Amino acid sequence: MICARVTFVPSIIYLRRSFTTVFQPTQTRARMAVQQPEWKIPERASAEPVLKIFNSLTRTKNEFIPRNGRHVKWYNCGPTVYDASHMGHARNYVTQDVLRRIMTDYFGYDVHFVMNITDIDDKIIIRARQNHLLDTFRAETKALSSELITRVDSAWRTHVREKLGKGLIEAERAVEGEEENAWSRLVELIQDKAWKQDCLRRDEKFDMYFSSAARTLAALQAAKTCLESGQTSMDAAQQLVDDSKDILAQALDSQYSATVTDPAIARSLAAYWEGQFFKDMARLRVRDPDTLTRVTEYVPEIVAFVERIIQNGFGYEAEGSVYFDTKAFDYADGHDYAKLEPWSKGNRELLEDGEGALSKKSGSRSASDFALWKASRPGEPSWPSPWGPGRPGWHIECSVMASAVLGDNMDIHSGGIDLAFPHHDNEMAQSEAYHNCGSWVNYFIHTGHLHIEGLKMSKSLKNFITIDEILEKHTARQLRLAFLTQLWNSKIDFSESLMTGEVRNIELTLNNFFNVAKALINQARADLTKSDGRHHYETPEVELTSNFHESQSNFREALCDSFNTPAALDVLRDLVSKTNVYINSRGMNLNVGVVENVARWIGQMLRMFGLGEGENAEIGWGQDVHGSGSINREEVLMPYVRQLSSFRDGVRRLAMEKNESALKDILALCDKLRDVDLIPLGVALDDQEDGKALVKLVSPAELMKARDDKRAQMEAKAGKKAAAVEAERFKRQQKLEKGRIAPEEMFKPPNIAEGTYTSWNDAGIPLTDGDGKELSRNQAKKVQKDWNSQKKLHDDYLTWKKASLE
Amino acid sequence: MICARVTFVPSIIYLRRSFTTVFQPTQTRARMAVQQPEWKIPERASAEPVLKIFNSLTRTKNEFIPRNGRHVKWYNCGPTVYDASHMGHARNYVTQDVLRRIMTDYFGYDVHFVMNITDIDDKIIIRARQNHLLDTFRAETKALSSELITRVDSAWRTHVREKLGKGLIEAERAVEGEEENAWSRLVELIQDKAWKQDCLRRDEKFDMYFSSAARTLAALQAAKTCLESGQTSMDAAQQLVDDSKDILAQALDSQYSATVTDPAIARSLAAYWEGQFFKDMARLRVRDPDTLTRVTEYVPEIVAFVERIIQNGFGYEAEGSVYFDTKAFDYADGHDYAKLEPWSKGNRELLEDGEGALSKKSGSRSASDFALWKASRPGEPSWPSPWGPGRPGWHIECSVMASAVLGDNMDIHSGGIDLAFPHHDNEMAQSEAYHNCGSWVNYFIHTGHLHIEGLKMSKSLKNFITIDEILEKHTARQLRLAFLTQLWNSKIDFSESLMTGEVRNIELTLNNFFNVAKALINQARADLTKSDGRHHYETPEVELTSNFHESQSNFREALCDSFNTPAALDVLRDLVSKTNVYINSRGMNLNVGVVENVARWIGQMLRMFGLGEGENAEIGWGQDVHGSGSINREEVLMPYVRQLSSFRDGVRRLAMEKNESALKDILALCDKLRDVDLIPLGVALDDQEDGKALVKLVSPAELMKARDDKRAQMEAKAGKKAAAVEAERFKRQQKLEKGRIAPEEMFKPPNIAEGTYTSWNDAGIPLTDGDGKELSRNQAKKVQKDWNSQKKLHDDYLTWKKASLE
Repeated sequence: MICARVTFVPSIIYLRRSFTTVFQPTQTRARMAVQQPEWKIPERASAEPVLKIFNSLTRTKNEFIPRNGRHVKWYNCGPTVYDASHMGHARNYVTQDVLRRIMTDYFGYDVHFVMNITDIDDKIIIRARQNHLLDTFRAETKALSSELITRVDSAWRTHVREKLGKGLIEAERAVEGEEENAWSRLVELIQDKAWKQDCLRRDEKFDMYFSSAARTLAALQAAKTCLESGQTSMDAAQQLVDDSKDILAQALDSQYSATVTDPAIARSLAAYWEGQFFKDMARLRVRDPDTLTRVTEYVPEIVAFVERIIQNGFGYEAEGSVYFDTKAFDYADGHDYAKLEPWSKGNRELLEDGEGALSKKSGSRSASDFALWKASRPGEPSWPSPWGPGRPGWHIECSVMASAVLGDNMDIHSGGIDLAFPHHDNEMAQSEAYHNCGSWVNYFIHTGHLHIEGLKMSKSLKNFITIDEILEKHTARQLRLAFLTQLWNSKIDFSESLMTGEVRNIELTLNNFFNVAKALINQARADLTKSDGRHHYETPEVELTSNFHESQSNFREALCDSFNTPAALDVLRDLVSKTNVYINSRGMNLNVGVVENVARWIGQMLRMFGLGEGENAEIGWGQDVHGSGSINREEVLMPYVRQLSSFRDGVRRLAMEKNESALKDILALCDKLRDVDLIPLGVALDDQEDGKALVKLVSPAELMKARDDKRAQMEAKAGKKAAAVEAERFKRQQKLEKGRIAPEEMFKPPNIAEGTYTSWNDAGIPLTDGDGKELSRNQAKKVQKDWNSQKKLHDDYLTWKKASLE
Repeated sequence: MICARVTFVPSIIYLRRSFTTVFQPTQTRARMAVQQPEWKIPERASAEPVLKIFNSLTRTKNEFIPRNGRHVKWYNCGPTVYDASHMGHARNYVTQDVLRRIMTDYFGYDVHFVMNITDIDDKIIIRARQNHLLDTFRAETKALSSELITRVDSAWRTHVREKLGKGLIEAERAVEGEEENAWSRLVELIQDKAWKQDCLRRDEKFDMYFSSAARTLAALQAAKTCLESGQTSMDAAQQLVDDSKDILAQALDSQYSATVTDPAIARSLAAYWEGQFFKDMARLRVRDPDTLTRVTEYVPEIVAFVERIIQNGFGYEAEGSVYFDTKAFDYADGHDYAKLEPWSKGNRELLEDGEGALSKKSGSRSASDFALWKASRPGEPSWPSPWGPGRPGWHIECSVMASAVLGDNMDIHSGGIDLAFPHHDNEMAQSEAYHNCGSWVNYFIHTGHLHIEGLKMSKSLKNFITIDEILEKHTARQLRLAFLTQLWNSKIDFSESLMTGEVRNIELTLNNFFNVAKALINQARADLTKSDGRHHYETPEVELTSNFHESQSNFREALCDSFNTPAALDVLRDLVSKTNVYINSRGMNLNVGVVENVARWIGQMLRMFGLGEGENAEIGWGQDVHGSGSINREEVLMPYVRQLSSFRDGVRRLAMEKNESALKDILALCDKLRDVDLIPLGVALDDQEDGKALVKLVSPAELMKARDDKRAQMEAKAGKKAAAVEAERFKRQQKLEKGRIAPEEMFKPPNIAEGTYTSWNDAGIPLTDGDGKELSRNQAKKVQKDWNSQKKLHDDYLTWKKASLE
């Protein structure tokens, strides 16, 4: 082993002789005379890996350099809140959460994570207004009338004309003329693939429009039938409204939108969906942002921001709206418009989508100019401004709020890839126009698309899965694992096979590993006498330890390589399999400490990814629970303590009432506690002969299954017993029935065919047969025997009869 | 705002044009034509602070440069296990734990922390042998005899002669001659300050020796008195053994040490104290080492290591022992002996202490040479070696085990400052002699001394406090806080004023802050309707946020400055006080989110220091508990569930027994559950009128106090009531007593003085007075009135008497 020696390092000598603030005791005087030998600066055998991030501004991986020490300013585009969150949101926000956790919990940056809530937006306004108008209309609808039908019918026609195009004029005609054929014509058309293909090509929302039309048509026909038969009930009327609500809401909105003036209507819709959004995020274990900003709280700042952009020469007013002058900005020295996607600059479709459904861009100088401020029309919320009442454009909000919180520069800006153009490009242009700088954002990161079973998920196609729905099928941990198996910035194909294949596989592998590791550790702790000699490092231990440290280093390199989580997961899985090999091969010589180190670290890394909650020192990644899993003593205990208290309440009440059946009722309560109340809490009580129940904490699912099995068994047993009792009863009944005839009468008609016998003794035993011949000895013996049997049966019958009469 | 632009950065252009592995969708063709504008590398406004560590090898702060990426090899000197751990251990191991947590949990290094257990050592051998010999002797002692007394007496004389010196010859003489004066002479001497001062100067263990002598002398006198009065019981004999055990054990050891040959005797003592050590560490929340090594498990490796040192020319054998040739090493090229304390090279006292009490260094070439391998004498455990049966020297174990686990170089070696010379210097010399390298350790860090109330704590002076004792008075958190308020490498003066002053102060400040923050957060969550408008950032929020980020940066700088925890704590306290000012001044406009961010971060940093346990997402630093605090569901729940189950058991039993008093007994059980069983679990049940008890989780101490108060109150009330009842009873008794006399007899003797009246009517009412004179009208009226009263009293008496006879 040769260690190179540095013979002369001046800077070190300088350090060594410099003033030392902390003195060690002993022999200060001696130390002045004798000096310590030179210390050489350690040489790096391998360098520290450097974090690189795939930056949308360069479309390549750039070394991450924060502006201020380890402080990281980060702005993330939040949701527009007007509907339930779906898988697309889950992919985006869970992925951002993973990146954020890696930055804070793994790399140790001090991150300031800011997110906005878009609560002013065309989509919100339209949805809120339509909901409001429809609710009002429904509340005012008291009876089914031809007027109401005409109104819905007219809305239906408008819808068909505007949304389904001339291809359905025939269907419309059918309604006018032969109404009964309208429905079948619609059905015919929908089965005509060529026609449907043609429609879909023209409008991807065709399917949705078509089913609305079909639903409303059916409702209209039903309503007419009702009215013809003289039914005018409120129920029937409201049924029509409910079944045609999509189409009716649009018609009401185009007629009455201007009457909706209360700003609280849009605000309350946004507030509701914001609440739902954060509930969903909590269930997905997405951390709350450090700072949350809402557009409605920043309107004055937005107005001031727009004014400054105009002052700086990059904005102009037209008809009460203000537009951003993209050409002026792009030509200006030190500025570039559309840094992220310069090739999308002229893309009319993307630009229009960015401007919103309500905007009529009139007065803008160029097609690529976009609204900073929109003049509000009646029925749209508005705020005062130098340009008259209006509302903010979509892109300006992020520029203003991010600047208000983070200032003239940020390290990271993130969002879904959908937002890159025009939203993020416009946002950057606005901010750079305002701050008059060239780099408002240093690293722009975009999470990739999500497809479902290979197909694009789209709200308008209604093939989207809400977070509520997905959490019914999979746990938050499984979802997150699915996302972690893919690069954050690549497209993910969310499929059943991914979930039941790879994800389930990883989960099982890890669970099994943790179970084995925990068992080994517990065993070693319980059996302390055996711990001697187990600390020795032999070749297998040295190898596993070196594998472990290599894994730590590979894991770090994977995350430094632009947060490569699939590679990092592979490192963990590989280490698990190597540790399993060690465990299986080492037998009695197993060094539990080495296994514990590995298990502890893997658990920590999984928790760092947000895959588990619970105490950090615990082995593994904790219990997996549906939804949010933050544990505190009160939360854990209270359900149990409440159960204890309410059981006591019940017992006390019964004891105080002193009814006759009090003790019986108390016992029933004891059974209920065991069989009903404690089951969902995962507590099993097994009553023992000594009167002391055995207590176990088990999983509730396991307990419920055991209870149901037991119940089924009991029921089967009870059924069998009942059947046996019934058979017995039936047999006895037959016997009694048979015994109803007195033995004296049994050989006489009508109990026996006329002329079977011709004479009888006093007891009614036949003496001669039908021919008057005396019975043979054998015959006589037989009738005597039958008589005796019947005598016994009849006696039983008489006894039973007597008893039943008493 | 002006942002400088870089006009030409070739490397970036290269990167931008390079192949991109992750493609974003849309318009790949268009992108080929239009390129993104240049991206400029972010400029650092402030640099990342660099970790510097006070290095004992330079006695200055050196930048920390690990050899392999972020992997850190760390060896920490563990305890010699032969007695209970004390405050000195607490200071050392808690401080190392803090440094380790900062390295892993804050700076994010992958640390491999190795610690040894010294389970072969002169102190262990002596202690184990003496315990063993004394136990055997005691078990064989069946009766008090003059023989036994003589034996103890002889041991006492040896002790006095060897340990207390000629100053006590007089006392010895007294025992020989006038025995009754010996004790008083000892007492006289101990009160003679000049004499004691003189003795203490010669031997710091004097106090301990003196009290042993005094105790044994008293025991001897008592035993002699016993024997003279004819008592020879085994109890009396063993009492003498117990009271003179220190002195007797030494005498037995010097006589019989060679007979103790079973190596299990020393091993089991070490195993016991090792177990106790880790229990204490767990209570102090010191994390287990990643790798633990024991000397007894590494003896063959030690032998091989020593052989190699001899081969390399730095060791030699003498009389079955092997010594390290310090001179040869120091003169060799590329080697330095005593790098840490070159000025201590010749310090005979330190060197001898390092060699151990049992060693007789015979055959070593130089006074500064030390044993690598010691020939074992009879009564000492031994292992085979090329030099005959022997055992490892003290310093060699660390060289061997650290090399076995970490190899030929480590980043950090740590230990208490006491160990710097000769232990660590010898250890380094051995390892560098073995590996033939110049820098086996890159950073040597030593924790400072601990004093108690200004005085050096020393086992021999018996002024030390065990960890058990200190945890009776303070919590593990308080102790750790005390250590954190001092630099890890400076002397700490552990005093009552530190604990009740600064430490208590910090704890209160932080607790109050967390309580307020939690209350504000809960309030905001409960009152969701009010959350609107609370997210706005105005000047106070911007200021507090900027203070927060500045604190994060200052905190990092403090820890980078050689783990300056007092400065880091000051940063936290300062931030708390600024946040309190914000809270108090902001009123209704408070932005809870900003407070939550601060509270969450401070909680995290405190947990990082090991000051709290519990879920990371929780606000604050969790509940403070005595001892270890790792929480798992089963541990938390089982006491409650058991209580529930056993209450049910009791109720069930009573209900099934169907005794007459069953219901009453069940109610009593209900009360017992509330008043007795649930109190120590911290569950308060308040019975309400509606029969549903209110359930609260409170601290058990609080509950117990409330119960005791209530009980005292009830008792006081009951006492008052009983007194009132007694008074009433007494009054009634007196009344009845008075009513015993019939009204007809009341004016006649013996109920009244003879001759008061002279004639009466039929009812016994006086007519004439003693002089025979008719009573005056007033007198007659009075006696009639008295008669009426008595009539009433007498009637009451008769009624009572009749009732009591029935």
